[in-house]
Amino acid sequence: MTAPILSCSRRLRRTPFSDGVEAAGVKGYTVYNRMLLPTVFDSIEADYHHLKHHVQVWDVSCERQVELRGPDAGRLMQMLTPRDLRGMTAGQCFYVPIVDETGGMLNDPVAVKLAEDRWWISIADSDLLLWVKGVAHGYRLDVLIDEPDVSPLAVQGPKADELMARVFGDSIRDLRFFRFSVYDFEGCDVVIARSGYSKQGGFEIYVQGSELGMPIWTALFAAGEDIQVRAGCPNGIERVEAGLLSYGNDMTAHNTPHECGLGRFCNTHTAIGCIGRDALLRVAKEGPVQQIRAISIAGDPVPGCDRVWPLYARDMRVGQVTSAAWSPDFGTNVAIGMVRMTHWDAGTELRIDVRGEDRAATVQPAFWL
Amino acid sequence: MTAPILSCSRRLRRTPFSDGVEAAGVKGYTVYNRMLLPTVFDSIEADYHHLKHHVQVWDVSCERQVELRGPDAGRLMQMLTPRDLRGMTAGQCFYVPIVDETGGMLNDPVAVKLAEDRWWISIADSDLLLWVKGVAHGYRLDVLIDEPDVSPLAVQGPKADELMARVFGDSIRDLRFFRFSVYDFEGCDVVIARSGYSKQGGFEIYVQGSELGMPIWTALFAAGEDIQVRAGCPNGIERVEAGLLSYGNDMTAHNTPHECGLGRFCNTHTAIGCIGRDALLRVAKEGPVQQIRAISIAGDPVPGCDRVWPLYARDMRVGQVTSAAWSPDFGTNVAIGMVRMTHWDAGTELRIDVRGEDRAATVQPAFWL
Repeated sequence: MTAPILSCSRRLRRTPFSDGVEAAGVKGYTVYNRMLLPTVFDSIEADYHHLKHHVQVWDVSCERQVELRGPDAGRLMQMLTPRDLRGMTAGQCFYVPIVDETGGMLNDPVAVKLAEDRWWISIADSDLLLWVKGVAHGYRLDVLIDEPDVSPLAVQGPKADELMARVFGDSIRDLRFFRFSVYDFEGCDVVIARSGYSKQGGFEIYVQGSELGMPIWTALFAAGEDIQVRAGCPNGIERVEAGLLSYGNDMTAHNTPHECGLGRFCNTHTAIGCIGRDALLRVAKEGPVQQIRAISIAGDPVPGCDRVWPLYARDMRVGQVTSAAWSPDFGTNVAIGMVRMTHWDAGTELRIDVRGEDRAATVQPAFWL
Repeated sequence: MTAPILSCSRRLRRTPFSDGVEAAGVKGYTVYNRMLLPTVFDSIEADYHHLKHHVQVWDVSCERQVELRGPDAGRLMQMLTPRDLRGMTAGQCFYVPIVDETGGMLNDPVAVKLAEDRWWISIADSDLLLWVKGVAHGYRLDVLIDEPDVSPLAVQGPKADELMARVFGDSIRDLRFFRFSVYDFEGCDVVIARSGYSKQGGFEIYVQGSELGMPIWTALFAAGEDIQVRAGCPNGIERVEAGLLSYGNDMTAHNTPHECGLGRFCNTHTAIGCIGRDALLRVAKEGPVQQIRAISIAGDPVPGCDRVWPLYARDMRVGQVTSAAWSPDFGTNVAIGMVRMTHWDAGTELRIDVRGEDRAATVQPAFWL
């Protein structure tokens, strides 16, 4: 079957950068938080090599922000996550699992602490806004919650520091990982963090105000012509090699943070007030019975992983793969899977059903980076 | 620009009917509630003519259910909507605007009352589950909330009664509009309602259990060969002619039900407990300042409406169109717009900016059906 086309409508929201993305020749999209997210410009493999050697500008506007503002903002933020936020200062970004009352993952966003009473939650693919609004309403908290007009633009790749320094000044080279600061762009204050959904290094620019979108986009491309700057997007090969999980693909509301290998972000004993605390204390005590693992799949390049691929030990189902790609750099099919504890040790040989084809799969000691 | 392809991944969920949809030659998708929703099989215009003359089977699994079960289910349901639910009996379906504390629309689903303590909310495109869970948690209600394995399959078109009677028995012809009953399929109980997202008549089968999906799909096609049954989907022309609104396209959380022309579903004086009641009492008193209208657009067939098209009176912006299509049966471009009260009277002549092209537009007295 040929790839289906995407029928566009207002409901699949365009972004402040969509005109630039289209002019750059985007070939495919996915839909993320009801917004267009590019998936390929040249080819996924060509995009991958370029990302690892040069610098790319990514329209990740779909990482929408949930803004919490008011006296109860900090209290509410701690209710949402089992990560202890007491040591967090304004200017920091924390990766925070968000859980419901049973400890099920509702999102895995990055929390950006702008001030004691003002936070952004930079969300993965679920309407976290509705959970936060419902909880705040039910608890009668003194906090305003909305989705502001803020659209992240990522600059990723080994030449990201060079490109960003040319546009925002040399001081940006000193920005530490998962810290943000405010920089000037043509007289406007812009929040920029050292972060991003790749392991190639880089930044995320929180573009406040859609009208600022194309000017920043254009400035980055103008400044980077000689260093081969290109439009790009989160790369389906690179992120699996690096073990960057994708909410909705590799984990859902059925999974606890511990199953996702995110136990280190759960300070369940000290994160007082977290809604899922009771359930997660139980999980922390017993340990998860399944967990995310790096998996290699033998044979020729696998097709796109558009559904769960079951993992077997003999005839017993012991897990599933939810993301997979052929890695040119590592010469194997790399994958992210959820494996039961009986079979999750590194080196365990399994079988996998790849769309009806039986293949050998091996649990890896770590991701490929 | 050629139409972009949709990059599929597990996150864009397949449905129990996806294999059938693909075998029927689906050409395009949209993504709705993070699930695949077909948009075209032959061409949108050919699909339109077929829908109006024959019968189609639609995979609308993306109308996910939010299930409320427990002693507080009824109380919670009334908290969610300004529609008075006291007269509703088990076996009925109600179209219910869902609003937040400011009266903003969070969804426009159909509520299905299975029993006093058990409801399904058959949702439009937003994660209503998270709002309902957040509210229930905050108010400490005694109710279980989840998304069950229930996938609606619609049978729409003038021959829908004939096809359904052949598969589920003649008694289904007696089912009244927006009522449901339980029918037998190969020994399984199946909930079927007379409802659907077209004005051509028909049913929605709430398929409980994914494994039942393809058997029902196959039975419908086998039974309808001689009456030209085909795979179809909500049709972008027919639904605009009929004025069937689409959440995310024609209205968002910024709009009140009254702006959407849904004031008749707001019994704000009697719907005691509704979360948005205070705000909506104010709206009901003052009336909305803008409202949904049928709009005709002059000239050749318009392109796809993938973003807001502004409406003007002279140089003043007075509204916007959010859905539009060329109607073969009515010989004009039909559209759904939101128009300010100063210019919403039938017959008002406006200008519209259709992707940079200036066209004449006229406010219609009613939709085309």
